[in-house]
Amino acid sequence: MAPMRSWPEDRVAFGGDYNPEQWPRNTWTDDIELMRRAQVSFVTLGVFSWSWLEPAKGEYEFDWLDEIMDRLAEADIAVDLATGTATPPPWFSLAHPQVLPVDHDGHTLWAGSRQAWCPSSPVYREYALALTTQLAQRFHEHPALAMWHVSNEYACHNLPCYCDTCAGAFRVWAERRYGDLERLNDAWGTAFWSQRYTAWEQILPPRRTTSFANPTHQLDYHRFGSDTLLDFFRAEKQVLGTLSPGVPVTTNFMTTTAFRLLDYHQWAPHQDVVSTDHYLLESLPDPRAELSFSADLTRGIAGGRPWLLMEHSTSAVNWQPVNRAKAPGQTLRDSLVHVARGADTLGFFQWRQSLSGSEEFHSALVPHAGPDSARFREVCALGEVAERFGELVGSTVEARVALLWDYQAGWAANGPAMPSQLLDYPLTGRLLHAALRRRGVTSDIVHPSADLAAYDLIVVPTLYLVSDEHAQAISHAAEAGAHVLVTMFSGIADGDDHVRLGGYPGAFRDLLGVRVEEFFPLPEGETVALDAGVAGRGGGEGRIWSEDLYAVDAEVTHRYASGPLRSRPAATRRVVGSGTASYLSTLPDEESLDGLLGDLLEAAGVTPAAVVPPGVEVVRRRSGERSWLFLVNDTDEPQQVAVTGHDLVSDTAVSGSHTLAPGGVAVVREG
Amino acid sequence: MAPMRSWPEDRVAFGGDYNPEQWPRNTWTDDIELMRRAQVSFVTLGVFSWSWLEPAKGEYEFDWLDEIMDRLAEADIAVDLATGTATPPPWFSLAHPQVLPVDHDGHTLWAGSRQAWCPSSPVYREYALALTTQLAQRFHEHPALAMWHVSNEYACHNLPCYCDTCAGAFRVWAERRYGDLERLNDAWGTAFWSQRYTAWEQILPPRRTTSFANPTHQLDYHRFGSDTLLDFFRAEKQVLGTLSPGVPVTTNFMTTTAFRLLDYHQWAPHQDVVSTDHYLLESLPDPRAELSFSADLTRGIAGGRPWLLMEHSTSAVNWQPVNRAKAPGQTLRDSLVHVARGADTLGFFQWRQSLSGSEEFHSALVPHAGPDSARFREVCALGEVAERFGELVGSTVEARVALLWDYQAGWAANGPAMPSQLLDYPLTGRLLHAALRRRGVTSDIVHPSADLAAYDLIVVPTLYLVSDEHAQAISHAAEAGAHVLVTMFSGIADGDDHVRLGGYPGAFRDLLGVRVEEFFPLPEGETVALDAGVAGRGGGEGRIWSEDLYAVDAEVTHRYASGPLRSRPAATRRVVGSGTASYLSTLPDEESLDGLLGDLLEAAGVTPAAVVPPGVEVVRRRSGERSWLFLVNDTDEPQQVAVTGHDLVSDTAVSGSHTLAPGGVAVVREG
Amino acid sequence: MAPMRSWPEDRVAFGGDYNPEQWPRNTWTDDIELMRRAQVSFVTLGVFSWSWLEPAKGEYEFDWLDEIMDRLAEADIAVDLATGTATPPPWFSLAHPQVLPVDHDGHTLWAGSRQAWCPSSPVYREYALALTTQLAQRFHEHPALAMWHVSNEYACHNLPCYCDTCAGAFRVWAERRYGDLERLNDAWGTAFWSQRYTAWEQILPPRRTTSFANPTHQLDYHRFGSDTLLDFFRAEKQVLGTLSPGVPVTTNFMTTTAFRLLDYHQWAPHQDVVSTDHYLLESLPDPRAELSFSADLTRGIAGGRPWLLMEHSTSAVNWQPVNRAKAPGQTLRDSLVHVARGADTLGFFQWRQSLSGSEEFHSALVPHAGPDSARFREVCALGEVAERFGELVGSTVEARVALLWDYQAGWAANGPAMPSQLLDYPLTGRLLHAALRRRGVTSDIVHPSADLAAYDLIVVPTLYLVSDEHAQAISHAAEAGAHVLVTMFSGIADGDDHVRLGGYPGAFRDLLGVRVEEFFPLPEGETVALDAGVAGRGGGEGRIWSEDLYAVDAEVTHRYASGPLRSRPAATRRVVGSGTASYLSTLPDEESLDGLLGDLLEAAGVTPAAVVPPGVEVVRRRSGERSWLFLVNDTDEPQQVAVTGHDLVSDTAVSGSHTLAPGGVAVVREG
Repeated sequence: MAPMRSWPEDRVAFGGDYNPEQWPRNTWTDDIELMRRAQVSFVTLGVFSWSWLEPAKGEYEFDWLDEIMDRLAEADIAVDLATGTATPPPWFSLAHPQVLPVDHDGHTLWAGSRQAWCPSSPVYREYALALTTQLAQRFHEHPALAMWHVSNEYACHNLPCYCDTCAGAFRVWAERRYGDLERLNDAWGTAFWSQRYTAWEQILPPRRTTSFANPTHQLDYHRFGSDTLLDFFRAEKQVLGTLSPGVPVTTNFMTTTAFRLLDYHQWAPHQDVVSTDHYLLESLPDPRAELSFSADLTRGIAGGRPWLLMEHSTSAVNWQPVNRAKAPGQTLRDSLVHVARGADTLGFFQWRQSLSGSEEFHSALVPHAGPDSARFREVCALGEVAERFGELVGSTVEARVALLWDYQAGWAANGPAMPSQLLDYPLTGRLLHAALRRRGVTSDIVHPSADLAAYDLIVVPTLYLVSDEHAQAISHAAEAGAHVLVTMFSGIADGDDHVRLGGYPGAFRDLLGVRVEEFFPLPEGETVALDAGVAGRGGGEGRIWSEDLYAVDAEVTHRYASGPLRSRPAATRRVVGSGTASYLSTLPDEESLDGLLGDLLEAAGVTPAAVVPPGVEVVRRRSGERSWLFLVNDTDEPQQVAVTGHDLVSDTAVSGSHTLAPGGVAVVREG
Repeated sequence: MAPMRSWPEDRVAFGGDYNPEQWPRNTWTDDIELMRRAQVSFVTLGVFSWSWLEPAKGEYEFDWLDEIMDRLAEADIAVDLATGTATPPPWFSLAHPQVLPVDHDGHTLWAGSRQAWCPSSPVYREYALALTTQLAQRFHEHPALAMWHVSNEYACHNLPCYCDTCAGAFRVWAERRYGDLERLNDAWGTAFWSQRYTAWEQILPPRRTTSFANPTHQLDYHRFGSDTLLDFFRAEKQVLGTLSPGVPVTTNFMTTTAFRLLDYHQWAPHQDVVSTDHYLLESLPDPRAELSFSADLTRGIAGGRPWLLMEHSTSAVNWQPVNRAKAPGQTLRDSLVHVARGADTLGFFQWRQSLSGSEEFHSALVPHAGPDSARFREVCALGEVAERFGELVGSTVEARVALLWDYQAGWAANGPAMPSQLLDYPLTGRLLHAALRRRGVTSDIVHPSADLAAYDLIVVPTLYLVSDEHAQAISHAAEAGAHVLVTMFSGIADGDDHVRLGGYPGAFRDLLGVRVEEFFPLPEGETVALDAGVAGRGGGEGRIWSEDLYAVDAEVTHRYASGPLRSRPAATRRVVGSGTASYLSTLPDEESLDGLLGDLLEAAGVTPAAVVPPGVEVVRRRSGERSWLFLVNDTDEPQQVAVTGHDLVSDTAVSGSHTLAPGGVAVVREG
Repeated sequence: MAPMRSWPEDRVAFGGDYNPEQWPRNTWTDDIELMRRAQVSFVTLGVFSWSWLEPAKGEYEFDWLDEIMDRLAEADIAVDLATGTATPPPWFSLAHPQVLPVDHDGHTLWAGSRQAWCPSSPVYREYALALTTQLAQRFHEHPALAMWHVSNEYACHNLPCYCDTCAGAFRVWAERRYGDLERLNDAWGTAFWSQRYTAWEQILPPRRTTSFANPTHQLDYHRFGSDTLLDFFRAEKQVLGTLSPGVPVTTNFMTTTAFRLLDYHQWAPHQDVVSTDHYLLESLPDPRAELSFSADLTRGIAGGRPWLLMEHSTSAVNWQPVNRAKAPGQTLRDSLVHVARGADTLGFFQWRQSLSGSEEFHSALVPHAGPDSARFREVCALGEVAERFGELVGSTVEARVALLWDYQAGWAANGPAMPSQLLDYPLTGRLLHAALRRRGVTSDIVHPSADLAAYDLIVVPTLYLVSDEHAQAISHAAEAGAHVLVTMFSGIADGDDHVRLGGYPGAFRDLLGVRVEEFFPLPEGETVALDAGVAGRGGGEGRIWSEDLYAVDAEVTHRYASGPLRSRPAATRRVVGSGTASYLSTLPDEESLDGLLGDLLEAAGVTPAAVVPPGVEVVRRRSGERSWLFLVNDTDEPQQVAVTGHDLVSDTAVSGSHTLAPGGVAVVREG
């Protein structure tokens, strides 16, 4: 047997989850044939196969997997082989009922769906590592093997778990974090509501209680959950590293802004390559803006390096209340936006649409209608394009703007009993990112600990919790010449989730030269007028939030023009070293926000990746001297863009100007 | 003592639930007097009397029941005697806590309301059959006894139950259904999400879990629930058949479209006579259209034979968020619509409005205000009309249109993780039925297994799950000359809830000559424009659903005129043998739907029961050569209808034309 | 050590909850200094200090409390010392898990928030009384001690509890109330739904069940909950009375209309002084009208005597979905409305805004921003005003209108399965109170058992449950000359929650000379037109409720002008002795209601406290010959009022006319 193979790098790898155990052998034959037709270059195998691989404790059935691995090797399709540990078989759940997760209210979450296991369970870990060991031993040299795929979408849906096993593990975690109870009592502020702990065994998960939980207690339970699953991932990875050296290991993240249970910035260093899943969130006003946000976030998590889009969908999903299908052409359009923003692999859930089971109405590469379908023809077209994209694999995305994101700040910002439930953590960041995107400006979405030196504009949206160290790094960047924009509800708390006293925005007060005495959140549907501002633009309005803001040492750029804060400052700017620090205390309407960012971009000297008409998304990837301009026409009209080079999508030369069809995409190798 | 009596057939039986145990003896005397005044001809006795009949285990107190039975016999009022097994006494629940039902989340449902018993409990069955035995032995020859009423509204509210007893019973049921686990694994599609079962004891109810349940698992749990209670009903019936031969046995169904937990098509053959309860659903846009739908459905369940309306209300109920009273005249109007559509008995819940307990604000025949009230005078007027209706008892309802309904298709269509939660199973059927009703066309709502030969038009609304056999029967009906209209999301799955591959609508693809590649569900409030169609009517709009539809071998009658499917087919028609098969891929607005059905009715040669002005409901009952035309004026204006004969409501001759007062009703013996 | 001190009566006592255990010693020093600056005259200490006072069973740490008590004594700040029994320490919950409350669904409510203890627990009572004993022994002669503060906001959030301990206690309670089961079965109407009890142990709390609970069962569970906690309060009070004689004892009520779990009319006689907490309910259309309502209700509960506002807020709270800050000037305005309506103490939660814990975003006297803030300057201004208010301490509020309120009537009116869920008990009363307030008329909100002789107008809003005795008292008041206004859904049930038969409004039928045959509740958003009425005012509209009303012996003042009740009576009036009795069967729009009340006030000869422009709230307090007119300008414009005397707010003389700034307040000593 030949040794394992490498991940396809002569093209953008293209494929998806493959679940042959759902189908008879003759379908396998069809599958391989259709994969060739669609130019599929990789599949992920065995994600939910445990009950098929180990039908009884210690009894393994690998023959079927041998067979399909051999067939895939023969077809030159790389395999991302799952450890299969995402969901245990029914025999396991029956034998070990204590492994079932328990929810906030104390309800047992039974088997019958997926991932019904307690993240802290030593029993589960033992069985999972045993299966991983068996798979690694059997397949580590298989010629189809190109990557290991550990578990699946960790924390979906077994976190947070509130069972007694987790209670015990949380105590161990807390003791490790705090050392002694006095420090914990101080960090959690247990003087409030008579919560002083005098022995470790008194500590519980923040289970259903009479009223609001303690915010730091709840924040720590988030931290504990993320840490616990990361520890589990690392245990699986260690088995693979020992038994299958040289094969890259990943687990598929969920960097959608709808999922925030894991601190992926802590997880990323333990991945050989960062991979993620993404699905459009149709309940948002602009789901495709969120796609771009998520892709930029994934790139930030991956440290700017290319990443794998392990799963997305050719069309509708099945888990939203109403599952919108993708319009003709959208499959290609959505996929290429991921590539534009750093994906070097395009994976889908799943290869062939199931005829039964909980996701039978989730779209796939091969739909229920079969290969004779518009959707499969789009898939084949995408495969063809992916093949032509070989030249840009490994290139990076050009960005001079940083937008800061911190999962822990989000956990704290959306803690119990906050000023406004309307201020969902991702909201501010998404609005600012969307405004930059509308202007053709690409931003890196990075952790506050990232190196900020490379950025001309640094956007700090609702960074509620921030350490002194990170706050200082932002200040230093401004002093060194960056233009910094901080928004409301930033800098409020320290790492213990303690409010920084003396006036908001605490950690950023000096940098910004402002002081906020009180928050004035706005109820749903209520707005506050904004004046024309120093730039003289038409007055817009703010929503969701306003503040009693004082410009202590800053220029007032906008004022409130209605309500109890009428004529008080709404936005400010301060010169800092060779940069500036601006503050925004409300969420302005789209036009006002565009104006405000326009001023900042101009000051920072940041220009768009290319000058494009409104509604055209533009991003540039670069590798040394070479560069590729991604152009996505989100409008219903043809659009013209000035560019010269070779369009990899249509495989045609472009000279001076390129016309994008309605909904059309171009990827132009420039020059 | 004389033997038991027969059910009143010289009039439309009129009466309701009578709960004398709630009142002192002197009220009983008043009751009998008032029943005479209202011409009450039957009462249902003892539905919730268990704790009064058996105050301690094996100790029976029947004296009070003897007394009231005697009084009723003397007053010539037939008794529908309940077995009293709907709700156990508190002593029972205390002694047998394991009989308490458990809900989806694992919560125990305690005693303190009604019907708090696990449907699978052998303990409960033992006690219930003991009480039934006692009652049958004591009363089987009582001269008031005309019918046995087993339990009450089975499954409301103890289904589904997720307790351990049910878990065990479900395993037995599953083993009986599937024989071996391999067949079950295949049927449930357990290859998805690692759910392969290797021992029967691994099988659980679909309890609260981490994510979506397995659809076939959940469908089977619906089937199990319905089967289990049917088995219980049959056990009670067997006791009665043995000890009280010759007395008809029924249990009151709930054929409202708001209740779909039992497959009444499987229950009906075990009833000596089908009976049902119906209450207006005020949250619907047109509650009275649903009343007509439910009545037609009940008749279909009863195989076209007359049925008993065991319960409805003279005015408001008490279990809706806001309980609307009936307008003056509405009591009569609603009751007669039931008779028009096949009811030969008019029962109400309840005789006398309670002064305490959970339904004290549910209206009754005798309201809180007492007999000196407009409502009681309406009741007496209804009693008088019911008396005059003797001539039409046993007649049948005339219909040339069938509308198919299958509880199991509904269970599957509303399974977990479907394309759209907006497509509630009854919606499509109700919309089509309402459009037919607006045109004066009566439809039989029947199971797909019904004999379809008698129908000129067959409407197939959202028949998501359908067996090959039923699909073929529909095709044969078209070939034999029927006009068939199939709507979106029909024919998708087989009896195992497996999607039929190759393109939707699976089982009906060939009949209709169409192929759907993908569903395009529409979010709440979003619509898609429809073109004018071949008939040239003004373009309307569709909502909730649309489809990527190809007319493979069919004429396109309407196209989409906006959205991603612009200019694609929306509705089609195909000539099949001597009939046609039409397809509709969206839910059109009322006017468009009326036009579409108008074309079909014209093609099918189906005319209204009579030509009536808009807003007048019309139905014909027939018995041999005789016929009765029911006319219900739902408008606020007087309406004129061409008809000749004798109006049984006003007891006057009608010659050529009849004027209906606003809200008025006429039942004209024609000729 | 000097003996305990008396409550400050030379000023309106001003202060709030003080939680020094949350802060280091150097902050204590600042605190005392800032309290002096703000003229704080009292603090409430130790409400949630149990875990700081008794870190292990029987081990007490009182040193820190000694120290702060001494500092406060030195600063001449009176202490309202809490017994600290509101929330047990974690060590207690761990040792006694059976004390955790259990909710309606059976979920355990764990520690981790506050007040997680079962109200019936003898274990909890034992520990709580032990702590109370220790505190009383140690501090009963402390020179700072001015009042005892028992527990905190009883029943928030541990009522109702459905645990087994409560089940046992409820049985004891029921046996005490009913004596024998026959009486209980009759009271609860257990003949309905087979609920007849044959042994006490069958009785359970109204736990989660299959359908609606028994209404009287549920009503009794409310009564039991209130009684149980009152019994607990009395046990604590008894300890204090024995060990700390002469010191007044209170517990802070929650007389907001959003909280109705305790029958404060039964609690009040056991208080040495009535105290309460109040927070604005921002989800209401007019939160400040509810503030006035709540203050009038508190005064009624206190029997007309001055009361303590123990807690309110300087600005935003943190437990609403969006927490609105108070506009500039509003802190003063809201506080003075409480004083206007009888408060002689102004307390706030809390002194210093926490930097951690569940209420870190609840406003305080010293905000996060610190003393150099607009909010703290407003606080100081308020302290100054409170100091000047010494002269009015002990005076009473002038009112000639009574509005009846009965917590038990509310429990019953909002029982299970009522005619309309839209008719929330406080709604009618609040609407009528707001209409009176708009007219400058102050009303006492009193229990039906209050002495009604002093009132010219008696308003009876939705008094669903009423005893014969109370109904007669109202009739007698009318006969004696009072004008009585009864609204819909009054007089319906007796003390057992049994409907009074023969026509609604049962107990008031004869007084009013009307008879209602049926309720016609209106769905959300639906209205019914009203005619111009005998007074000839423009026809308005009713909402939420209407009735089939007959004027048996009464003049019809308004009729319905649309819907099924068109031209039927909507409101009536009847001369009774030297008074009148009016009935209102719907909830009219604001203008119609104002007209209707205007007629009644005119008839009753009730005039406003002073003639003021619209939008100015006016109330008079009086003491012997002296009187103070409170004027609150709720508009955005200056307003002029005719008055002469001395304004205590601005400390200026007023001669003939006083101009109130927008949002301004004046308290004019008249004469």
